[in-house]
Amino acid sequence: MTLTPLFDDVFRAQLAKLFAWRRDIRHFRPEPVPGELLQRLLDLACLAPSVGLSEPWRFVIVDSPARREAVRVNFECCNAAALAAQNTDHSAAYARLKLAGLNQAPCQFAVFADPDPSQGRGLGRATMPETAAYSAVMAVATLWLAARAHGLGLGWVSILDPAAITAALDTAPDWIFIGYFCLGYPQTDDDLPALQRAGWEFRRAPAATIVQR
Amino acid sequence: MTLTPLFDDVFRAQLAKLFAWRRDIRHFRPEPVPGELLQRLLDLACLAPSVGLSEPWRFVIVDSPARREAVRVNFECCNAAALAAQNTDHSAAYARLKLAGLNQAPCQFAVFADPDPSQGRGLGRATMPETAAYSAVMAVATLWLAARAHGLGLGWVSILDPAAITAALDTAPDWIFIGYFCLGYPQTDDDLPALQRAGWEFRRAPAATIVQR
Repeated sequence: MTLTPLFDDVFRAQLAKLFAWRRDIRHFRPEPVPGELLQRLLDLACLAPSVGLSEPWRFVIVDSPARREAVRVNFECCNAAALAAQNTDHSAAYARLKLAGLNQAPCQFAVFADPDPSQGRGLGRATMPETAAYSAVMAVATLWLAARAHGLGLGWVSILDPAAITAALDTAPDWIFIGYFCLGYPQTDDDLPALQRAGWEFRRAPAATIVQR
Repeated sequence: MTLTPLFDDVFRAQLAKLFAWRRDIRHFRPEPVPGELLQRLLDLACLAPSVGLSEPWRFVIVDSPARREAVRVNFECCNAAALAAQNTDHSAAYARLKLAGLNQAPCQFAVFADPDPSQGRGLGRATMPETAAYSAVMAVATLWLAARAHGLGLGWVSILDPAAITAALDTAPDWIFIGYFCLGYPQTDDDLPALQRAGWEFRRAPAATIVQR
């Protein structure tokens, strides 16, 4: 055990800025993500909390052009269905949104969760098996912040069919698909969510989400 | 839009320490969490990403002694069942673990997700409705790191029956229970997970969780 670090006001102010300037990125510059930087981000992601210390996150780095194309085609298909399901008041606005950077992002990976890992000996999962998936989400949250601190942007693509992605990536059929992620240097930085800039939705006051009991 | 912040090597090194020294805390000191600090943490948590900017997280602050007692009793019940389900090789080790700080933690709250919020207009949830719950987990991850930066420890209690907690807290029956959380000043700081210190489980090399495609 090394000396306990002290986090001061200067760090806390920077951390708050990191939270505020972390965006879901869909517009990437073409420069590649250095391999050692990706490895560093994955190392940091693995410091996330996990139920029973089970570390159930599984990172699938997707470099194969054919597999990337299969993911892109599935996105196009699911996104067209989502557009068709919009009511007429929203469909034009929906069609204008850019919802993924799959054509541009130099680095792409999927995240899955092993639903029943032997690691952790099942601790904490008996009544809530979904905590395995939640642990993998924690790893994504950690990686997202680390990426932004390194000037990289992450985009979470959820407009996908999990079974199709599992097939496209040839991963274990019991793994839970969490999301597909685009990573790269963003074209722009911003402290407003892209969907708010696009007029789709806006942030509400935190008080709206708090209940007292 | 304000000036884009620059994150430098000094900040990145501190951020890596924050990830490394964030623990799941089960031993708390009695000092209360100042109300304005809790509010600050909730404000920061609401900077987390959410599917379609739907902000589906719901924080239920639990101050009522009777409700806290109902949660504690449910934990005891679920934990006894989990102990009984351990195989004989593990049961003594399991029984020695302290898995929650419900008797000590000065601040306690539950987190839920609204499974189908109107905010966000459904964007991103058509094929993966579970992204509402994942968004709430993202808010927890954000709050956890912010808490540690302020010297506070968080403990995630998942050894609970979601239906029982929903009843005990009288929350909307369709809300998805994500977890129950203990917050307070920790008795000790450490960079090793408590379950590793206790000999229950240990961290693996990140390479074990990475697949190339």
